[in-house]
Amino acid sequence: MNVKGTPTRTIWPAREGGAVWIIDQTRLPHEFVTQRLNDLGAVAHAIRAMLVRGAPLIGATAAYGVALGMAEDPSDEGLTRACQTLLATRPTAVNLRWAIEAMAESLAAVPPDQRAQAAWAKAGAICDEDVALNEAIGDHGLGIIKDLARTKGVEKGGEGPINILTHCNAGWLATVDWGTALAPLYKAHDAGLPIHVWVDETRPRNQGASLTAWELNSHGVPHTVIADNTGGHLMQHGLVDMVIVGTDRTTATGDVCNKIGTYLKALAAFDNAVPFYVALPGPTIDWTVNDGLREIPIEQRDAAEVTRVWGRTAAGALEWVTITPTGSPAANYAFDVTPARLITGLITERGVCAASAAGLAGLYPERAPAPVPAGSAAGKGAAATADGAL
Amino acid sequence: MNVKGTPTRTIWPAREGGAVWIIDQTRLPHEFVTQRLNDLGAVAHAIRAMLVRGAPLIGATAAYGVALGMAEDPSDEGLTRACQTLLATRPTAVNLRWAIEAMAESLAAVPPDQRAQAAWAKAGAICDEDVALNEAIGDHGLGIIKDLARTKGVEKGGEGPINILTHCNAGWLATVDWGTALAPLYKAHDAGLPIHVWVDETRPRNQGASLTAWELNSHGVPHTVIADNTGGHLMQHGLVDMVIVGTDRTTATGDVCNKIGTYLKALAAFDNAVPFYVALPGPTIDWTVNDGLREIPIEQRDAAEVTRVWGRTAAGALEWVTITPTGSPAANYAFDVTPARLITGLITERGVCAASAAGLAGLYPERAPAPVPAGSAAGKGAAATADGAL
Repeated sequence: MNVKGTPTRTIWPAREGGAVWIIDQTRLPHEFVTQRLNDLGAVAHAIRAMLVRGAPLIGATAAYGVALGMAEDPSDEGLTRACQTLLATRPTAVNLRWAIEAMAESLAAVPPDQRAQAAWAKAGAICDEDVALNEAIGDHGLGIIKDLARTKGVEKGGEGPINILTHCNAGWLATVDWGTALAPLYKAHDAGLPIHVWVDETRPRNQGASLTAWELNSHGVPHTVIADNTGGHLMQHGLVDMVIVGTDRTTATGDVCNKIGTYLKALAAFDNAVPFYVALPGPTIDWTVNDGLREIPIEQRDAAEVTRVWGRTAAGALEWVTITPTGSPAANYAFDVTPARLITGLITERGVCAASAAGLAGLYPERAPAPVPAGSAAGKGAAATADGAL
Repeated sequence: MNVKGTPTRTIWPAREGGAVWIIDQTRLPHEFVTQRLNDLGAVAHAIRAMLVRGAPLIGATAAYGVALGMAEDPSDEGLTRACQTLLATRPTAVNLRWAIEAMAESLAAVPPDQRAQAAWAKAGAICDEDVALNEAIGDHGLGIIKDLARTKGVEKGGEGPINILTHCNAGWLATVDWGTALAPLYKAHDAGLPIHVWVDETRPRNQGASLTAWELNSHGVPHTVIADNTGGHLMQHGLVDMVIVGTDRTTATGDVCNKIGTYLKALAAFDNAVPFYVALPGPTIDWTVNDGLREIPIEQRDAAEVTRVWGRTAAGALEWVTITPTGSPAANYAFDVTPARLITGLITERGVCAASAAGLAGLYPERAPAPVPAGSAAGKGAAATADGAL
């Protein structure tokens, strides 16, 4: 999306080749710093040090990492080493593994002297596929926002704006472009619909206050940052027309595992008859899990993410400050599960469906699981992990 | 309650008279600093600069302010001036006005040469009344926790602890001692019940992460600080046995106006069949308001409370850091209203009752309003204000 008026992706090849550029997201929202990654080592560092984050972007970056590795050593050993180096950066990131395996599979069949070029093309294709996927989500979500605008009479001069609340960052910074939950918002804004976004700050890591606010601000989408405590009050008073969030993992039955606090917003939306949508790319559906609450263990992260907050001091320094007393412990559950019963609909690249087994099976008939016999041990999922999605 | 093992109030007269001591709460949780207030001017400054906060404590401090004023000038003019000086410190704080008027009324009938002594005694009595009120709330709440312990089988060696979630700070720091929502917790802990408190950090002002955590830590009550987003997940997984919060204002029908985010926790408690209690002193019931959602306007405070966070840097300095990008606006709604239908019970100094007109009228028959004729304009309330309660 736009940064200072210029269409920008989160990763792009250097014009002269042989390198990729990324945004150093650890400096956002206070500084917009781009960084040129010239070799495999630089890419591995960028992923490990979380200069890039968000599952799709990590995958895309790793793909370019393999490509840069092939420029250094296109042999079979070189390919294996590049893949292993990148896999080790964030071992539990599912999308990282997926992208590296896609690169390895595609390059195994290519003669070494053509691998560098083939890898470069394949990495670019992975990026373009991600953009197309998210743009499709955006188009389907735009339809929902247009319907809201019609209901509210906004297009006929009725009272705007259309108020949309979002939690965490499921925007273009987490993907190559567009984002998932924010894609429909960019589409609506670009189409001239008067939207306004309530941005949950999303403690403890503040991805909303930092990344989502920065994205929307950079693209010129009207928005207001709020404490996570605020959404219920806004919904009680008719100040939210729609909630839209992303998801780290969606069960085959439509339960959604997303950033901690999503469930509370879904409860408030349900209590106030506000539509609650979840935007997701099909590949994040976990067809092996049926009951999100019982089957998805929730990762606990470092308590220091709760006890300390990062920001810019009055003097301009970027600092961590501790907000709790010495001796008070903290707990840091990274995700929660929103039961399908609270979700109005799922917005995917193939269209919008009910948050249910039938809804998802309708959009993804080739992936819908055969019914599992009672008493089977199948269907247990692995731990939901923040890696790749923060 | 205890600070480093020593029973402590938030305000206490100097042993030699002629001054009161307070805790400078602006330095908590990072520094425990007490301050001696020697005259009316020092008291006015302490209230204005929020060295003391919490409605009951502000009232108690103002009462001592009048007493110190009487030591300086016990004439009628002196009394009027002392009251006006103190009223101007936080003009919208209801409890401040109540305490000052109680002092003025009591002293008007006293000859000037006896006013200093009478005022000192009256201020002490106001403090003691607050302590007694809160201790009574604590005793009634203790009964509920004992019942929970019995149900859970904790007393018979069943699995502890009893997990209690609280929001914001309704502890002894906001009162003279005990607090409201925390009074039952101190009672339970002191009675040897194995309680553990989940402390909502309570953005944007972090009263939970700072004040509640500091209180519980100082008194030795096991607790864990969590992001406000976390409570729903904990309740889904059986990790909360009870929620207890304070209230700034309670309607005659049992709706509760409390710190922003309370409503979200009440929704989660209701969805997971977790008991949700509100502790309140009878005087905070607003008998003129029947529909909290429609009749209580919610104060909006400075957006900087959302965009900046205060804490201790690694170097030990106390600093504000900005967490949002330049150009992103923020909104700061201070309270929300939790409808009575989500509240299990109200814990008052007179006992526990249902959150309903009938429940409250049963405990306060002398205050319950006569039914208002339909169409009457009566019953509209003034704006809920954070003053006196932050």
